[in-house]
Amino acid sequence: MKFFENIILYKDKGEHLYVQLYKAIKKLIIAGKLNKNEKLPPIRKLAQMLDVNNVTVVNAYHILEQEGLVYKKMGSGTYISPDFLTYTSEEIESSKIIEGLGSLSLIEQGQIQISSNMINFASATPKADLFPVEDFKNALNEVLDRDKGNAFDYQESQGYLPLREVLIQYIRESNILVNINSLQVISGAQQGIDIIAKALLNYGDPVIVESPSYTGAIASFRSRGAKIIDVDLLEDGIDVDDLERKIRIFQPKFIYLMPNFQNPTGISYSRDKKEKIIDLCRQYNVYIVEDDYLSDLNFYSKDNTTLKSLDENNDLVIYVKSFSKIFMPGLRLGFLVAPSTLYDNILFAKHSSDISTSGLLQRALEIYFSRGKWKSHIKYIEEKYRNGFDAMVRNIEKYLPKEIEYIVPNGGVNFWFRLPKGISSKELYERSIRRNVALAPGNLFFTHQNDDHHFRLSIASVDNHEIEQGIIVIGDIINNLMDNKNSFGKERYRPIL
Amino acid sequence: MKFFENIILYKDKGEHLYVQLYKAIKKLIIAGKLNKNEKLPPIRKLAQMLDVNNVTVVNAYHILEQEGLVYKKMGSGTYISPDFLTYTSEEIESSKIIEGLGSLSLIEQGQIQISSNMINFASATPKADLFPVEDFKNALNEVLDRDKGNAFDYQESQGYLPLREVLIQYIRESNILVNINSLQVISGAQQGIDIIAKALLNYGDPVIVESPSYTGAIASFRSRGAKIIDVDLLEDGIDVDDLERKIRIFQPKFIYLMPNFQNPTGISYSRDKKEKIIDLCRQYNVYIVEDDYLSDLNFYSKDNTTLKSLDENNDLVIYVKSFSKIFMPGLRLGFLVAPSTLYDNILFAKHSSDISTSGLLQRALEIYFSRGKWKSHIKYIEEKYRNGFDAMVRNIEKYLPKEIEYIVPNGGVNFWFRLPKGISSKELYERSIRRNVALAPGNLFFTHQNDDHHFRLSIASVDNHEIEQGIIVIGDIINNLMDNKNSFGKERYRPIL
Repeated sequence: MKFFENIILYKDKGEHLYVQLYKAIKKLIIAGKLNKNEKLPPIRKLAQMLDVNNVTVVNAYHILEQEGLVYKKMGSGTYISPDFLTYTSEEIESSKIIEGLGSLSLIEQGQIQISSNMINFASATPKADLFPVEDFKNALNEVLDRDKGNAFDYQESQGYLPLREVLIQYIRESNILVNINSLQVISGAQQGIDIIAKALLNYGDPVIVESPSYTGAIASFRSRGAKIIDVDLLEDGIDVDDLERKIRIFQPKFIYLMPNFQNPTGISYSRDKKEKIIDLCRQYNVYIVEDDYLSDLNFYSKDNTTLKSLDENNDLVIYVKSFSKIFMPGLRLGFLVAPSTLYDNILFAKHSSDISTSGLLQRALEIYFSRGKWKSHIKYIEEKYRNGFDAMVRNIEKYLPKEIEYIVPNGGVNFWFRLPKGISSKELYERSIRRNVALAPGNLFFTHQNDDHHFRLSIASVDNHEIEQGIIVIGDIINNLMDNKNSFGKERYRPIL
Repeated sequence: MKFFENIILYKDKGEHLYVQLYKAIKKLIIAGKLNKNEKLPPIRKLAQMLDVNNVTVVNAYHILEQEGLVYKKMGSGTYISPDFLTYTSEEIESSKIIEGLGSLSLIEQGQIQISSNMINFASATPKADLFPVEDFKNALNEVLDRDKGNAFDYQESQGYLPLREVLIQYIRESNILVNINSLQVISGAQQGIDIIAKALLNYGDPVIVESPSYTGAIASFRSRGAKIIDVDLLEDGIDVDDLERKIRIFQPKFIYLMPNFQNPTGISYSRDKKEKIIDLCRQYNVYIVEDDYLSDLNFYSKDNTTLKSLDENNDLVIYVKSFSKIFMPGLRLGFLVAPSTLYDNILFAKHSSDISTSGLLQRALEIYFSRGKWKSHIKYIEEKYRNGFDAMVRNIEKYLPKEIEYIVPNGGVNFWFRLPKGISSKELYERSIRRNVALAPGNLFFTHQNDDHHFRLSIASVDNHEIEQGIIVIGDIINNLMDNKNSFGKERYRPIL
């Protein structure tokens, strides 16, 4: 019964109490804290214990039953299902999306069960309390009062024209000078990438990606039957020689790049490399898909030029802009800019994907931009993150063992590390979790998924004052792992590279 | 020349002058203002007349030529193409999405340029003034006050749990008894269909569809490289014998059906046929994708049973539920219910499509349902449409020539007609538009796109008091066409079937 006593429900968490309770009990079941055929507390008793309505418990038990985690005996009570274990091994960490995609996106979405008391270096998306809720709420209400039912009518597939206009102005500031026909509104960057895949890729078509990269994108390419070819990242960007070689051999449909504060490595391409890549792709007639998820968060880089701004004729780069990492991930809004040769294909792919992005949200975002709220929000986020960024740099230097290799990025939210030979990042991940520190193991970012000596720390979701404590814990665990390895006199984990 | 003098170009319109000019001339051609083989003004002359650069005119003429609307004679000039009529009937009013998808979805979205003073039988979506804007606005504000930033955080890919709960309750009322794991929230039915295509179809896989059908769905199947096989609709539903034959021959991945108030025909499958289809698909182990876009709007049918409710083990039917036609199209929210064998594939496909549907909108919809607003909205819509429906039945009977074949549906918003031999539905469409009545020509609903003797009238967007007047006009045009045909003594258009 003690497990149930320890369940804590938050009335102001923005999540129904019964959902919280259902999740808490599910967690207990999955963690093996409860035995098969064990009886759950009677409804009234648990309700009393947790100071909630009976209905809350009834609802929670009901969902657990529907999911096959518990069963009811008439007139007797509710019991843990005897076969929940099969269920949990299928599910792995209470998430269902595992293979191929990797749990990365689950971490990105905060769906990996990182409890609220953890120091969370795993997630690369901002915490909910950074979102400009009030301003956006005002924008929503302004739209509804102004546009009424029209806000809920079908929106043009290419996007709400006034929003497209402010976005064209917005990218003009970073020297992307294109006409409005080239801008397509998307329901988030993932959809943008998926639409590009749909518009360009057929079964067997080769695509070149960075290694490591964002596996959510790779999942979209794979879903079209594409052949994924990866090229290593060097300190100043992708290995251009190998890139040219592979372009020649494979003649890919496009290459998928994140040239500023790359995910997961935080690397920024040098200006020289950016120009070389443009030249190369022009020479070989290969499109570039540029995923710009974070170039706004530039702290120390002298040059966060996008490839798109170097694409003078707008005929080479498909530029995908996400608002998730710097604004609000749950908005599901972004945009892409495409060469004119691709307009029709992309519009068609968008249309068959979801007809259009929510008009209400597009209209609200337009007002948000027009009122200048975007700029002040970016400033606010920048300051908050810059402090975290500086704290990271200081503490990594101070507490992580010298044997760890890393590159200090010039901006963004991600830091990428390579462990000494023989130290497993999965082991590090598991031990960290046990000590209440969450990080992202490297295998989530490789197409082959079996990397075991890299990890990523992100400052996006961590509180600045926790950074030092978190890095101390990670440093300590790595030191222990190195000691173990030395004392055993042999490697327990074989490194991949 | 006077038409060209009247062209007005805006320098600050956010659209290139040449695009504006191209569109203006195209409009003249489509409206029949210019004659076949008529010479366009010389480039310099037109440039001078409109006060633009020569290049603007060159570019505009160039696009017109690319589109086959004009042709060039070396050393002489540019002329209106003699066969532009074929072109315009294909395209219907200057829209960009043509091939495969058909302009249907443009009509559905109101993107076909139907002016506001037209009697609009073309669109099958409700008018904006029917949307429950105030109630939904309240729900949105309630969510924002309660959940704050959480409303904009990533939502679980499968959907917001409390929303899934109320949706499970909602379909329970129509005897769809499934557990909550089987319910996936989607960003509108089009996305649902697209996700199913992604989860199930690989290049070359056969899919069976009704003929006629919703071409937006077919576009998604085609995008996966699927092979589309169609089966005719009879008065009581799909031709089951032909269906069985084709299932045997092609062994399709699934069949795509709208068994209640089918789009575009309005036909409802008999109960007997529904059961036969379930048996057939069980026997041959074929999934059914049931697109339920409108079963709520039952006026006179004794049985609007869904196939899903007959799928007792939840292992055969993938049920896709749209809210667009009865609630608010621009919300981009719906759900699907899938057999457990498909959970993972569908969740994975959803995730790689757009990660998740907007959490804010999901949360607001949950409140909207929980407060009982949904039911009262459906009642309101039902009453409004029932009056329109009855008016349609009355006036069709009264004003359309007897030679026209049609089936009176038992509910929904669509009526489907077959013209007498030799009368062209494209011609009917064009003449109706000129007399301020919009309808949907049949070619939009066939996979082969060259049907020319069906048309659809929908009551969704038309004002009830305009129905009589609209039907009178259509009846009059058809009568004229029949008179012409008889007086010419021969058929000007060869019917397809």
